[in-house]
Amino acid sequence: MESVICTVDVVLLTLRAGSLQVALYMRDKAPFQGAWALPGGYVHVEADEDAEQAAARVLHEKTGIVSPYLEQLATFSGRARDPRGWSVSISYYALVPVKVIEQAERSDLKLVGVEQLKSLPFDHLQIIHAALERVRSKSTYSSLPVYLCNEQFTLPQLQTVYETLLNEPINKVSFRRKMDELGILEPVIGAVETGKANRPAQYYRVKAQFRHTLSQSGRGLNPGS
Amino acid sequence: MESVICTVDVVLLTLRAGSLQVALYMRDKAPFQGAWALPGGYVHVEADEDAEQAAARVLHEKTGIVSPYLEQLATFSGRARDPRGWSVSISYYALVPVKVIEQAERSDLKLVGVEQLKSLPFDHLQIIHAALERVRSKSTYSSLPVYLCNEQFTLPQLQTVYETLLNEPINKVSFRRKMDELGILEPVIGAVETGKANRPAQYYRVKAQFRHTLSQSGRGLNPGS
Repeated sequence: MESVICTVDVVLLTLRAGSLQVALYMRDKAPFQGAWALPGGYVHVEADEDAEQAAARVLHEKTGIVSPYLEQLATFSGRARDPRGWSVSISYYALVPVKVIEQAERSDLKLVGVEQLKSLPFDHLQIIHAALERVRSKSTYSSLPVYLCNEQFTLPQLQTVYETLLNEPINKVSFRRKMDELGILEPVIGAVETGKANRPAQYYRVKAQFRHTLSQSGRGLNPGS
Repeated sequence: MESVICTVDVVLLTLRAGSLQVALYMRDKAPFQGAWALPGGYVHVEADEDAEQAAARVLHEKTGIVSPYLEQLATFSGRARDPRGWSVSISYYALVPVKVIEQAERSDLKLVGVEQLKSLPFDHLQIIHAALERVRSKSTYSSLPVYLCNEQFTLPQLQTVYETLLNEPINKVSFRRKMDELGILEPVIGAVETGKANRPAQYYRVKAQFRHTLSQSGRGLNPGS
């Protein structure tokens, strides 16, 4: 039985300057040494309990980041995707506020807008596209986008995050109804946004029990409705 | 680099006597020789182009079945799930009419109601539960359940299939609106159900372009609505 190369890759997404961006890592080894690609690596059977632990380890080693949310995306596999041989990439995705990536201060990491991506080593472009599709579809009916926010945020700020992900304006009333339904937010007592012309906005944060878990609602948030 | 055992498993689902059932295969090799488990096997790097081809090959070898619909479910992995060592199961699911399984006439294959399953080798029970969750959630907004139907079926028959999967009654009017929206059905000219007391029902079939692809709609089918 010829063996299969078993790797994990992580699509780390963030919002910067109003655009959805993906973190790319400069590869320090062949193949594609020196090229920018998804942070990834071999499964280490001695160190890793399972593929999710491998993904968390690789993400931390390559980017310095520990993500509170890491979900399996899909597995990409086959004879043609890696010049080293028949390979499997068990792919994960993570979402963090941009601050977390900036604070890691890694010179071998850069952020690229997902609309600007042209070609990447392996099938990493395809993996990123699958992650975008998953994130967008999951954002319509879950609390997933809050992982892109800082610890405290106003409802208008959170609505903008949802609108950027869904790439559509959302009606304010149905957005707030959806947030009530998801039940993930709590007001930060005494914290209001000041220095703006209009009425100061209350700051919110995610309730402790939802900081590593999604809340989902039956019906989707329909952009434009 | 110690190597990882790379396998594929297939959750083959069908409807029999109004209940959702899964096909189990009697294992002919260790580990768990003689036990009933999901049809599965090693990826063959010489024969298989990718994991999906491996899953289709293994399904055919172990059950005699070629499924028109085969979708990747998730990858189950780790040190503990297989006594042979650190392993990966890239898992797929498929849906076929029960006739297809009966015609295969395999004595090493049996159907078990998904509610009757107790324990299974490896983490196969967990894989089946993940498949059920996926199938149920996907059935609310897609044409997935038609893969359980014979070539021709009436709308009341199809509605019963949806209701069995969703485990809830569905309003007839919203069910028919949803079918119109999905746009997958065409009437079979001249074919009506006869021999029943009430008005004869028209037979339908799936349009050619949807026999291997799902049609999805934005809003889900809300059971009870």
